[in-house]
Amino acid sequence: MTKRSDQIKLGAFLLFTGHHVAAWRHKDASIGVHFENYIELARLAEAAKFDTIFFADGVGVRLKDIDAASRKAHSGVYPFEPITLLSALSAVTKNIGLIATASTSYSDPFNLARQFSSLDHLSGGRAGWNLVTSSDPDAAFNFGHEAHILHADRYDRAEEFADVVLGLWDSWEDDAFPRDREAGVYFDKNKLHILDHKGKHFKVRGPLNTPRTPQGHPVVVQAGASEPGKELAARTAEAIFAAQITLDEAVGFYADVKGRMAKYGRDPDELKIMPGIFPVVAPSQAEAEDKFAQLQDLIQPIVGLNMLAGLSGGIDLSQYDIDGPLPDVPETNAGKSRQSLLLDLARRENLTIRQLYLRIAGARGHWQVVGTPSHIADQLEERFEARGADGFNIMAPIMPGGLKDFIDLVVPELRRRGLFRTEYEGTTLRENLGLKRPANRFANPAKAAE
Amino acid sequence: MTKRSDQIKLGAFLLFTGHHVAAWRHKDASIGVHFENYIELARLAEAAKFDTIFFADGVGVRLKDIDAASRKAHSGVYPFEPITLLSALSAVTKNIGLIATASTSYSDPFNLARQFSSLDHLSGGRAGWNLVTSSDPDAAFNFGHEAHILHADRYDRAEEFADVVLGLWDSWEDDAFPRDREAGVYFDKNKLHILDHKGKHFKVRGPLNTPRTPQGHPVVVQAGASEPGKELAARTAEAIFAAQITLDEAVGFYADVKGRMAKYGRDPDELKIMPGIFPVVAPSQAEAEDKFAQLQDLIQPIVGLNMLAGLSGGIDLSQYDIDGPLPDVPETNAGKSRQSLLLDLARRENLTIRQLYLRIAGARGHWQVVGTPSHIADQLEERFEARGADGFNIMAPIMPGGLKDFIDLVVPELRRRGLFRTEYEGTTLRENLGLKRPANRFANPAKAAE
Repeated sequence: MTKRSDQIKLGAFLLFTGHHVAAWRHKDASIGVHFENYIELARLAEAAKFDTIFFADGVGVRLKDIDAASRKAHSGVYPFEPITLLSALSAVTKNIGLIATASTSYSDPFNLARQFSSLDHLSGGRAGWNLVTSSDPDAAFNFGHEAHILHADRYDRAEEFADVVLGLWDSWEDDAFPRDREAGVYFDKNKLHILDHKGKHFKVRGPLNTPRTPQGHPVVVQAGASEPGKELAARTAEAIFAAQITLDEAVGFYADVKGRMAKYGRDPDELKIMPGIFPVVAPSQAEAEDKFAQLQDLIQPIVGLNMLAGLSGGIDLSQYDIDGPLPDVPETNAGKSRQSLLLDLARRENLTIRQLYLRIAGARGHWQVVGTPSHIADQLEERFEARGADGFNIMAPIMPGGLKDFIDLVVPELRRRGLFRTEYEGTTLRENLGLKRPANRFANPAKAAE
Repeated sequence: MTKRSDQIKLGAFLLFTGHHVAAWRHKDASIGVHFENYIELARLAEAAKFDTIFFADGVGVRLKDIDAASRKAHSGVYPFEPITLLSALSAVTKNIGLIATASTSYSDPFNLARQFSSLDHLSGGRAGWNLVTSSDPDAAFNFGHEAHILHADRYDRAEEFADVVLGLWDSWEDDAFPRDREAGVYFDKNKLHILDHKGKHFKVRGPLNTPRTPQGHPVVVQAGASEPGKELAARTAEAIFAAQITLDEAVGFYADVKGRMAKYGRDPDELKIMPGIFPVVAPSQAEAEDKFAQLQDLIQPIVGLNMLAGLSGGIDLSQYDIDGPLPDVPETNAGKSRQSLLLDLARRENLTIRQLYLRIAGARGHWQVVGTPSHIADQLEERFEARGADGFNIMAPIMPGGLKDFIDLVVPELRRRGLFRTEYEGTTLRENLGLKRPANRFANPAKAAE
């Protein structure tokens, strides 16, 4: 395989106190409840020439597990909502992309299209929308539903939701607003297009009441890895925050999703795949391991057991000796394959219950690399060159320290290898990610008929 | 009547190029499509110690009148959406209140409660929500409706919507988040309250997934003047952006709304009434009139006729000589009283069609005062002392010049009279408006039962 001529893209996935499940308990972690904390993180990432900062989101607090939730910072209660937070950050940054998560199951397409359009205008073309369908079972109850919405139904709605939003973003041609004072023409009504969408889930006339945005439209980001998730991404996504752990899985996912794009008339380069990585970095391997151990020591048993239950499809191990062996547990209905993987791991390595949750709780199931700057750079380079990634979403274990470590130690190593930029290529998120500015579907009738 | 011991509150109603319908055509007006324009306006208002900046909003473009709409900057197309815009402005201001308009007819209560909560956190307690039901008939078509929602139905939903939002804002007690690293307790589950709202329009379990805000909750603002509008305001509003034109109307409205509060157990001081005023100010009366005439000359006939039609309930005068007398026109069904007022005015003063629209189009039907600083200060003082207003929402004819004029010429005059502050009283919008921080309804069971 030939060496790639492009460079690695980097996103900073900002989860206030840090991605380690116990980060908030560490004395060096910011508690992350002040806006100033986020200015600091955004400016750190921008000074390092990261492509984006990114915020995940959820719209429900997990009441079933409230005892464990009350002992975590990652309990579904956020200090800020992502669209408002990124709007505020747009005013104190200049180059970095701003990607907010918003749900197709619990939002309205007109309002969502408009707010992301507004963020793109506010930031001069740096907005991205991470489209999620919200897997959290508690969210549905905050939006009039009697029960969680089924996966297939969520994706059915998401497909149509994406079409409506993308259509609304083309309501106005780029030059629809001459604002000609002399002639008295504010907008050109011939460059206004009425979507008139009538579908199974939505009826939306349009037009959107914001002009077309600096990027044409905000960058569309997704994270789903299910069959319908991959299909929606192949059709509409321009970036994917992937979650595969091994190199093989990553390469397989990359080829799978990019391979689906041709049938939608899309070039594989129109989509950037950026897996998450949880890096614990220090000048020496021993220091890195010590840093990680400090965080691991802060995991409370109730939190660890709750995460084991979450990742295993509901096995409750709280009645057993935490420092004893895993008991024989019955298979549950949900998530059988993940459950078997966990049980196999415990049996193979003869792990106690505590050892098992420590293995999976820290990075919350994500790809975790603990080591020196060159070791981490090796891992990133390998995955990038093997076409398992176009870039990475950096999930610092602790904020701001873990992000600083990555920037101070790993980024220079990537630059020495010619793998990461020293200056932004452009002023918009699209320009930096290497994505084309989309043409307005209505501007040219031949194009619209495609 | 005794002289008031409190001072006038001032809001800057920022309508990008200015409130005069033709402001955007004036060479001194900012076209208002760059975020920098709004930073300038917000900082101007903050340096002058205004209580708030405020943005109106709509969620539909008036397609029926598209020819006239295309020649106005006030056509329902906004450069930015208010919640995102004010979030961005929160990062570059420090003291001024930030009031965004959002619709109860076309928003979701959980998402709205959360975004305003987030804005209050981001700004350190400066957020306000201007609750509107959206009278614009075109909005409904963007949200799945077949026709405009009836006024009574909109208010029925608004009443319940306000209850849900206010309830969600009390999901967490003020001290629900000890974030105790040593004990490992992030939140105290006993200080979490589940709303479990089940009503005619909404079913919302809660809790909201943001902590209680610096102000307890964002300041609730309203503008409706109909019967159900006044009742909703008396029950829930903490500020009203009123629109009465004459002193008598203002005093009547003030007494009416404040008089309704007792039955909801509220003190009249818990609600600040702030009428809009469109001030054209200059050192001399002649200069002020000249300034106004310059703007009036920019009104295009198609725009003036369209505004006449809008304010008269649909009379189409485009077939008549614009410089001739008003023809006999049949009464329409809608807005009979406003229609007769206009017809009477034209007949009484023997106005041509053009003269008639010039009388009402410039300030778009709002209270308009053209004159010297002391004349304008007299008007404000009179209305304040007569208990027709607790403050005013300044609708500068042109931005930024008209706002600067008011600040440079009228504000010093108000200060000389002891009617306006020289320093902010507090750091939150509530503190500056003189509003109490509300207690959490769930924090004390005795209180909750009220």
